[in-house]
Amino acid sequence: MSPEIPLEPGAVIGILGGGQLGRMLALAAARLGLRCHIYAPRGDNPAFEVAYQATEADYEDGIALAAFARSVAVATYEFENVPVEAAKAVAALTPLVPGANVLEVTQDRLLEKSFVRDRGLAVPDFLAVSSTEELDAALKRIGWPAVLKSRRLGYDGKGQAVIAAGEDHHQAFESIGGVPAILEAFVPFRAEISVIAARARDGSFAAYDIPQNHHRGGILRRSVVPAPISARAAETARAMAMRLMAELDYVGVMATEMFLVDDQGRELLMVNEIAPRVHNSGHWTIDACTVSQFEQHVRAIAGWPLGDPARHSDAVMENLIGEEIERWPALIAESRLALHLYGKSATRPGRKMGHFTRLICGK
Amino acid sequence: MSPEIPLEPGAVIGILGGGQLGRMLALAAARLGLRCHIYAPRGDNPAFEVAYQATEADYEDGIALAAFARSVAVATYEFENVPVEAAKAVAALTPLVPGANVLEVTQDRLLEKSFVRDRGLAVPDFLAVSSTEELDAALKRIGWPAVLKSRRLGYDGKGQAVIAAGEDHHQAFESIGGVPAILEAFVPFRAEISVIAARARDGSFAAYDIPQNHHRGGILRRSVVPAPISARAAETARAMAMRLMAELDYVGVMATEMFLVDDQGRELLMVNEIAPRVHNSGHWTIDACTVSQFEQHVRAIAGWPLGDPARHSDAVMENLIGEEIERWPALIAESRLALHLYGKSATRPGRKMGHFTRLICGK
Repeated sequence: MSPEIPLEPGAVIGILGGGQLGRMLALAAARLGLRCHIYAPRGDNPAFEVAYQATEADYEDGIALAAFARSVAVATYEFENVPVEAAKAVAALTPLVPGANVLEVTQDRLLEKSFVRDRGLAVPDFLAVSSTEELDAALKRIGWPAVLKSRRLGYDGKGQAVIAAGEDHHQAFESIGGVPAILEAFVPFRAEISVIAARARDGSFAAYDIPQNHHRGGILRRSVVPAPISARAAETARAMAMRLMAELDYVGVMATEMFLVDDQGRELLMVNEIAPRVHNSGHWTIDACTVSQFEQHVRAIAGWPLGDPARHSDAVMENLIGEEIERWPALIAESRLALHLYGKSATRPGRKMGHFTRLICGK
Repeated sequence: MSPEIPLEPGAVIGILGGGQLGRMLALAAARLGLRCHIYAPRGDNPAFEVAYQATEADYEDGIALAAFARSVAVATYEFENVPVEAAKAVAALTPLVPGANVLEVTQDRLLEKSFVRDRGLAVPDFLAVSSTEELDAALKRIGWPAVLKSRRLGYDGKGQAVIAAGEDHHQAFESIGGVPAILEAFVPFRAEISVIAARARDGSFAAYDIPQNHHRGGILRRSVVPAPISARAAETARAMAMRLMAELDYVGVMATEMFLVDDQGRELLMVNEIAPRVHNSGHWTIDACTVSQFEQHVRAIAGWPLGDPARHSDAVMENLIGEEIERWPALIAESRLALHLYGKSATRPGRKMGHFTRLICGK
């Protein structure tokens, strides 16, 4: 499908996925006079509440998918685990950006890491593992400690197990359900960073300043921008992201998570993961930039020019996970703090309920 | 009605009026995890598209008003010409902030100006006029040039006529429909400014930095912050606004429009108009402050602490009126420019279709 691009104000954007990323995309689109139609399966879908239109249906419901696709000028996704078949069904009827090809690569860690490595970019050593025998062999080659990760459906640390020397690695394999996996070398990184960048249909590229990311239990806790890394490392990281986005023929915002490793006095950057969407480590852009990652994604898929990703302030973003949302009364009273609550009805452990960004002005 | 204050995240705020101010309030509330129910008569209601709930009904529909009032934890208005009877019907069933008393004062220019003058604050000379005979007499006292303004239902320069010396003032009276009016001395101001300020339930007060406002044909064209006025004049203006808000027992954001007049070498501030709501001359706060006027109003009516009104950037806000919306493709390509389109379906001359804010960073 060839899109009618650029979209006119008033056009309807379709979003597959109804979580907080879809919600913040819809809010950004509304500011620009664009409307959003959200498609998501039954559940707690906070994006529905701020959207022009909402469809609650399964990703296997071909009739609902077709009606959704026909109602929008362009479609995108806020969530990389949208089934590829659903994405293809939408793409048959309306432009889908980024494309279904991107989902195919990023839904499978083995394909994703192979894709990155085959482009000559560094990744941690990895091997495919689909049985205890393969795990035995892989551990001998990769060594300890190592990380076992399911190939599919992993996010926020789910489907992962660290295997230290002397531990029962067969139990680790069981703990992730014995599903097809990869075994990855554990990387003693100095910092985790991410490149949040946008690529437009014409190939133009815009990257935000790079945050340092702090995880706990596999879940992002905090992003600090700017990351304490050299200008050269930042430049290299941006160039790596740009390369990957061009290779994927990517349109929209993408996050490339990387490890910064001290390699005998040199700074080495390894790609850890690609998220083909707006990303939690870019939430600070709402409050510290004129153009947020959400607006940037909307601009890119609408065929509008990318915005200037410049920052007016330094920032620290923290997630409110599970019961941490109870901190809101103290947070709302703080100066230079922007609070974002996602309107989710049920609080569950590990669930992202909101975030806040502290601005450090006068950078 | 005594409000259940502070509101909890997830609570529903009711907004009377469905225009762009209601839309921007709803977007700000959503960011804080609050939901909005918009009530507005049939028409182009861009706030409906981003709201959790919408009721399209007349302000005279008591049943719809009651259902609306019962569905919300607190109600407010985005528009000062909501009929007082409708506001009172809502206030009988749910907390209405600001109160209906504020509408009574601000819907009638004669009451509003008398209210301000009776508090000892300067206003342009004015006299009530309800017939050509009264107009003859008033002109003799006020002198030329003067401005004839309908007492009720005036906004964006509607219901106003300037009377220059030698002009047919009876025709001016006819041009505003011969309705009850006031005749006001024409003020040769050096600048028009506005104080956008919030007052909380506990009496705490927060004012944004003061913009200078430029009008054309009675419609705001441009607001520039900071206004080129002395620190002392700014302090006086804020104190005047604070005084008025305290006298009205006001809760929420209010705009006080003022003239800065050179009075024999002294700076004199005269109150021109009170808008009991978020205001067009405060739109730059969305992009130049951590807490926008819209979030500030939501905080105040929710019983949350007021946010810090500090600016991180200087700013120039311009309206897109009528066909000026066609400028959007050039504007969206500009750096450090935040574009806001209101999603109105019909473009009409004089209609506010959007605005943009240019940020001047590194203040």
